[in-house]
Amino acid sequence: MERETIYFDNAASSRMDERVLESMKPYFFDVYAVATSEFGYSLGIEAREALDGARTKILSALGNPEGKLIFTSGNTESSNIAIKGVVKKLSGTKGKHIIVSGIEDFPVLNSARSLEREGFKVTYLNVDKYGLVDPDELNDSINEETILVSIQHANQEIGTIQDIKTIAGICNKNNVIFHSDATHSFGRVPIDLSTLDIDLLTVSAHTIHGPKGIGALYVKEGVPVAKWIDGGFQEFDLRAGVENIPGAIGFAKTIELITEEENKRIKNLRDYLIEKIQKEIPDTVLNGHPEKRIPNNANITFHFVEGESITLHLDMKGFAVSTGSACFSKSLEASHVILGIGGDHERAHGSVRFTFGRFNKKEDVDQIVDALADVVGKLRKISPLKGKKRGKNEISL
Amino acid sequence: MERETIYFDNAASSRMDERVLESMKPYFFDVYAVATSEFGYSLGIEAREALDGARTKILSALGNPEGKLIFTSGNTESSNIAIKGVVKKLSGTKGKHIIVSGIEDFPVLNSARSLEREGFKVTYLNVDKYGLVDPDELNDSINEETILVSIQHANQEIGTIQDIKTIAGICNKNNVIFHSDATHSFGRVPIDLSTLDIDLLTVSAHTIHGPKGIGALYVKEGVPVAKWIDGGFQEFDLRAGVENIPGAIGFAKTIELITEEENKRIKNLRDYLIEKIQKEIPDTVLNGHPEKRIPNNANITFHFVEGESITLHLDMKGFAVSTGSACFSKSLEASHVILGIGGDHERAHGSVRFTFGRFNKKEDVDQIVDALADVVGKLRKISPLKGKKRGKNEISL
Repeated sequence: MERETIYFDNAASSRMDERVLESMKPYFFDVYAVATSEFGYSLGIEAREALDGARTKILSALGNPEGKLIFTSGNTESSNIAIKGVVKKLSGTKGKHIIVSGIEDFPVLNSARSLEREGFKVTYLNVDKYGLVDPDELNDSINEETILVSIQHANQEIGTIQDIKTIAGICNKNNVIFHSDATHSFGRVPIDLSTLDIDLLTVSAHTIHGPKGIGALYVKEGVPVAKWIDGGFQEFDLRAGVENIPGAIGFAKTIELITEEENKRIKNLRDYLIEKIQKEIPDTVLNGHPEKRIPNNANITFHFVEGESITLHLDMKGFAVSTGSACFSKSLEASHVILGIGGDHERAHGSVRFTFGRFNKKEDVDQIVDALADVVGKLRKISPLKGKKRGKNEISL
Repeated sequence: MERETIYFDNAASSRMDERVLESMKPYFFDVYAVATSEFGYSLGIEAREALDGARTKILSALGNPEGKLIFTSGNTESSNIAIKGVVKKLSGTKGKHIIVSGIEDFPVLNSARSLEREGFKVTYLNVDKYGLVDPDELNDSINEETILVSIQHANQEIGTIQDIKTIAGICNKNNVIFHSDATHSFGRVPIDLSTLDIDLLTVSAHTIHGPKGIGALYVKEGVPVAKWIDGGFQEFDLRAGVENIPGAIGFAKTIELITEEENKRIKNLRDYLIEKIQKEIPDTVLNGHPEKRIPNNANITFHFVEGESITLHLDMKGFAVSTGSACFSKSLEASHVILGIGGDHERAHGSVRFTFGRFNKKEDVDQIVDALADVVGKLRKISPLKGKKRGKNEISL
């Protein structure tokens, strides 16, 4: 390969920004202390102040600088704490029913399934063809035993943004705790906790050019959450463990570096990709909502071919994309998200996710669409499904 | 302050080694990919191979390169997974009794307490005046309902090293799972899993000049552990979450950088500190075992004065030490470790922990002992306890 690989997969295209590492450096070395209470020595106090400063920056970006935010090891842990922590605290008091959408990412979905195996009742809400939850269906699903609703802000695969304002309102009206996984929207889509009645919010740094191994959970004052990781009294006594201060500082810097202009630029690039593919490659369908989607995501099914084949062939040509959920690295099962929006197995297997970041350029889009046209064309020639050609919206074989 | 602070507290003196950061850098930037299966693109495979390489390096340092090691966010999470994961898997089958030593660090101790609140029976083993568990007492405490024993390798405050070979043998003979928290010994004391029958071992990077936010749990093949963090299928399907590859690489480098010579040098420095204090400051007592202790720890009670006062005054003079457990940052409660070895509250409150790292020098020891003699002398002059002078081994007021 003569040039570097071009990444359209946020597992790789969201590589860390050099400025994030610069912000972390002092905390690897000169301020490598545990954040202590006022009874500690100076450096510990400096470390604690830095940690709290990072906390406030992230909370400010969420529109609630006075709120409570606990740092975790990432979005997976945050969602586990939110769901299992609330359930542990409330299950003896009210009931054993929780509600999630059927297209949640695995941290939420598998936490729910794990609770189900322990005897909880879980409602998996259907979504429409765009991936949207129906607020009325949510409202009807809530009963006297419901203690928690967890519905993502934006989808990990198809990028669809839920109407969490309405959803939060329904939960609030029914006196049910509401958690939202904002891993794939934080930074890219405004989230204003001063106008949204959200009890718990999962955020992470690793999809937006920040460090891995750091995430956070916003916890509204008064929301009951049991500790999921026992040990010391860190993070408001909600999450034990020596604080990952360099990670927290890097996370705050990550958020600081994102601008509205960047999100606009990324959205234009993404729209350009979608248009170009639709113009140059026949028999494709955009998965997810055409407008209500995060600016950095495109998810397209190329009919009659397998996403794995496209991924492999693009890789050989020096392009990285993903197929199905990035978390689903050990399985060949069809994407539960594409099946969830009414797609069949063929549509799910043929889906390719393109995620955009700070470092993607317009030339990259031109190049990848050329490569795609070539790869998809060749694969279709040898596809056993190719005879069954049909229009974009006919999605069952 | 004219010179930099000198650290004798591993929360700060274990600052990261520059070479560790260098080893991590490629994984922040060029290889910032999720570790994928063989169906992913090249960079994901490169990331996975790097991750597995780090795993093998750490396992090799533990004498079992073929073993199973899962990366976690740190020792706290590792111990939580070990204890709660085993209990969750086994509690329905055998019984609800676990055994821990009474001087465990908070991740183990508070996991046990948390299980106790949920109806488990917990035996907290006594230790002798050096902090050693009596293997016979352990043997007698195991009953038909016992599912797990968790006894640390070395103590977080007084550095005492348990005879885990004998302890592991007793557990094995009785068919009980054995977990050991080796956070404070890994790297500083040899641990050879090829001769030790340990089921689960907690290790961490942050006390040995490695990154924060990364730890690991060794899991012997066949040991039943339920997943504590649900989500994707990472880490042998035992710990979900996008892998912190830079952290894992840094952890492996951390271990690679430690040499036997370094541990000897640190031990000599530590011994020099103890001797010097005992020679120059009256009414002190070494807490922990005189020989069976990690090379980088000294814990000394200065009678008639408060550890907090010593810490604060040393801080003003530019020295950082800790008092009580470092994890116990939000409380003024007396150290459960010093109370556990038979000390009273006065001895616990007067205890100061000195931990040594790669960057400590002999001059630092000379300077801190001078400073200590001055600080302790002054504090004793105003101490309400000073009239009650007594010998090193008379430890009750």
